[in-house]
Amino acid sequence: MLNETKYKKVTPEIIKELATIVGEKYIIYNDPESLEVFSHDEIPGSVYRHMPEAVVRPQTAQEIAEIMRLANREMIPVTPRGAGSGLSGGAVPVHGGIVVLVDRMNKIIEIDEKNMMITLEPGVVSNDINECLKDYGLFYAGYPMSLETCYIGGNVAENAGGGKAVKYGVTSRYVLGLEVVTPTGEIVELGGKLIKNVTGYDLLQLMTGSEGTLGFFTKIILKLTPLPKAQADLLCLFQTIEQAIELVPRIITETGVTPTSIEFMDKDSIKVACDYLNETLPYENCGAMLLLTFDGSDMEQVEKDYEQVGKFIEKNDVQEIYVADNPSTTERIWKIRRNIAEAYNIISTRQSGEDLVVPPAQIAELLVELQYIIKKYDIMLPCFGHAGDGNIHARIVCPPEWSDEKWEATLPKILEEVYAKTISLGGMLSGEHGIGCKRVKYINKFISEEHLNLLHIIKRGFDPNNIMNPGKVF
Amino acid sequence: MLNETKYKKVTPEIIKELATIVGEKYIIYNDPESLEVFSHDEIPGSVYRHMPEAVVRPQTAQEIAEIMRLANREMIPVTPRGAGSGLSGGAVPVHGGIVVLVDRMNKIIEIDEKNMMITLEPGVVSNDINECLKDYGLFYAGYPMSLETCYIGGNVAENAGGGKAVKYGVTSRYVLGLEVVTPTGEIVELGGKLIKNVTGYDLLQLMTGSEGTLGFFTKIILKLTPLPKAQADLLCLFQTIEQAIELVPRIITETGVTPTSIEFMDKDSIKVACDYLNETLPYENCGAMLLLTFDGSDMEQVEKDYEQVGKFIEKNDVQEIYVADNPSTTERIWKIRRNIAEAYNIISTRQSGEDLVVPPAQIAELLVELQYIIKKYDIMLPCFGHAGDGNIHARIVCPPEWSDEKWEATLPKILEEVYAKTISLGGMLSGEHGIGCKRVKYINKFISEEHLNLLHIIKRGFDPNNIMNPGKVF
Repeated sequence: MLNETKYKKVTPEIIKELATIVGEKYIIYNDPESLEVFSHDEIPGSVYRHMPEAVVRPQTAQEIAEIMRLANREMIPVTPRGAGSGLSGGAVPVHGGIVVLVDRMNKIIEIDEKNMMITLEPGVVSNDINECLKDYGLFYAGYPMSLETCYIGGNVAENAGGGKAVKYGVTSRYVLGLEVVTPTGEIVELGGKLIKNVTGYDLLQLMTGSEGTLGFFTKIILKLTPLPKAQADLLCLFQTIEQAIELVPRIITETGVTPTSIEFMDKDSIKVACDYLNETLPYENCGAMLLLTFDGSDMEQVEKDYEQVGKFIEKNDVQEIYVADNPSTTERIWKIRRNIAEAYNIISTRQSGEDLVVPPAQIAELLVELQYIIKKYDIMLPCFGHAGDGNIHARIVCPPEWSDEKWEATLPKILEEVYAKTISLGGMLSGEHGIGCKRVKYINKFISEEHLNLLHIIKRGFDPNNIMNPGKVF
Repeated sequence: MLNETKYKKVTPEIIKELATIVGEKYIIYNDPESLEVFSHDEIPGSVYRHMPEAVVRPQTAQEIAEIMRLANREMIPVTPRGAGSGLSGGAVPVHGGIVVLVDRMNKIIEIDEKNMMITLEPGVVSNDINECLKDYGLFYAGYPMSLETCYIGGNVAENAGGGKAVKYGVTSRYVLGLEVVTPTGEIVELGGKLIKNVTGYDLLQLMTGSEGTLGFFTKIILKLTPLPKAQADLLCLFQTIEQAIELVPRIITETGVTPTSIEFMDKDSIKVACDYLNETLPYENCGAMLLLTFDGSDMEQVEKDYEQVGKFIEKNDVQEIYVADNPSTTERIWKIRRNIAEAYNIISTRQSGEDLVVPPAQIAELLVELQYIIKKYDIMLPCFGHAGDGNIHARIVCPPEWSDEKWEATLPKILEEVYAKTISLGGMLSGEHGIGCKRVKYINKFISEEHLNLLHIIKRGFDPNNIMNPGKVF
């Protein structure tokens, strides 16, 4: 374990020095009310919260480099923060110190049509990327479900996934270049406007998903694809969770068609999101739904694809299949899917959002186990997510009548069973949300000591004083 | 620079110990004739050659781990070797020592149809993967051009590219899991049968393309895709190199269609390969060709795609477009393309095969510069390769009438000009062949001192005695 006991406090002298770097008006200090919002991310409840001592809002890589050199000299922990929309406590300053907020670094630097690439600062809201690309007939396919609020810098830091990963992959597939400020305050360019590059080890991919522990991303080059001209969704209703989920891996293998998305929602998840949005879906008689998206360069091909998959699903135990082939219906359905997490955040502050990932063909077995756990502990455990990737978000929600003591005593037992099953199926702790501080104590159940040692070697080498986002990942 | 001066020699005592690990009959020692083949890869000529002191042929990860522990104790350099089909000297034992050959580790361990994944040992010939998958309707899309001879272990070590990368990406996109023997002799499992995974830093991608300097891959899990049911090629002839190459980046941006491949061949490259294979292509009146491949789930869509692209190309300065929509014609054309490198290897031992990569839209400018260099130095500089990715193989071939002295004095000057232009276009030293020992002295022209320092940190941490494939990458 890296030494986390020697950190120093942020003093008024240090604040003065920070002010010479970023300007006084871009520092929040001695103002608990304003600082509070930076003490947490989107995890509900009070467990994964910690107040920063100061928040600074730099505008350039050079400023961040100076902050890092100061922090190293003074032994002050630094936590990078984007939109704060994470679900693993990655942006929570668990050792206090300085939060570095990238909200002022929000420029779209260049749209390079000829190379089909875009260069961005880290504070650009992910949804704005595709908004500005529409007119160019281009598309950034790596965005996650929280696209309306999250920043691209956070997406890269977490290697965010999302709904389109079955066909398009996750964020990392699109990251071609990064300007990085290292924990020791060097500015390094990695990659570039290059589709292929084997000049040295792949530090781009090492940085992507490093959860703010190995460097700040101050410039990001993303690969774009032609904007799909046609899209349609199939919403498939099943009586039971098992009937829905067992089809998931078979859709691709038995039809040869790769949908853009294969999303799963159990009835509880749908109900909570519909109530939250005041929306309707015909979920009353079903136990679960699959939401499949198909996209492509023309509607004829998209129709052919969804008809082929639709026929395959019809031959199985489906209740009903609805086709959504216009943007407004599609958006209505996807909005429900996107808001499940948010809806659950409001229901209870006592919950644990899991982000399990298993081999896609093992996902039914995982869901069966989760059903067993629901009954055993008499809890709510709604499941939804990216079934086509083997990635399921399972929310362990505390029953309202439980005391805090009962919840705190029982949750570790539930997690132990959930993780044991995940491991036995060849699965991992997180598919896309990250380890952060939420899962840090569980990572050693999933990866070996020798594996952890390699992670430590990299972290120690890049950040010898362990001041960059300490208390995260491992 | 890591210390490479303290290596010890392989003694008869060490050979005895190696024999207890792998068995005596799997050791080559004191037999220069048998050892010679392991002194080089596919780079022609005598520059990138060095004799190993011993070759060992282990069969298990455990055996390799024991070899690494022995090598660390005795300070003997170890060079991993697959098929020896590399083009950067990556498998050349530049400091002597032990070559570890993985030819006996050639089992296809499992074809997992339901997860669409395959688990392999490193010594499987890449072409055999798709041969054995045909009956399952599955396909491994990451293979490189040398598929008939290369091993999958080498493909992963080099992050091999190939012709299909425009649509399918390179090897790294398909590597989901690795069993790795580290330089210090630990066995570590990375990833698994998982489409998404953010549990710890992405060591999988760090290992992929690490050129045998960070670990041996003893088990490889690859992602598969549904076998495309239809394919067609367009062979497009142009009067000039410029007319061909300037269309390359525009094909995707102006039609919205992403071909599987966009390959470029200048007239010299085509002629040399045709002569070598005793084949014919109508190249006499053209200056260059583009070879485009389209594949998909049905012929109707493939036809629609290639017709759209064909129409776009017809509107420009094309001489002729040939359609190849049957497997035998396709294979004939692609065999010519695949054999260009091999054909040039035979022509002369005095040459330098470059693997330049630039942003795709800058590739025309690079080719113009290379034409200028051809005239300036009066040399042959045939160009071919993966134009759609911005990756061009440029062979600097010594004119037969030049003395060795003239060649040795002139080549560095040519390289300096070629690299300076590549850098000015935002390009890099290698797109897919790797740095190896061939390009090791040039890497610092392309990446900064701070960047190199991060590579050194990783290498030093993983391989403190610098015994694993020393003298490569940096």
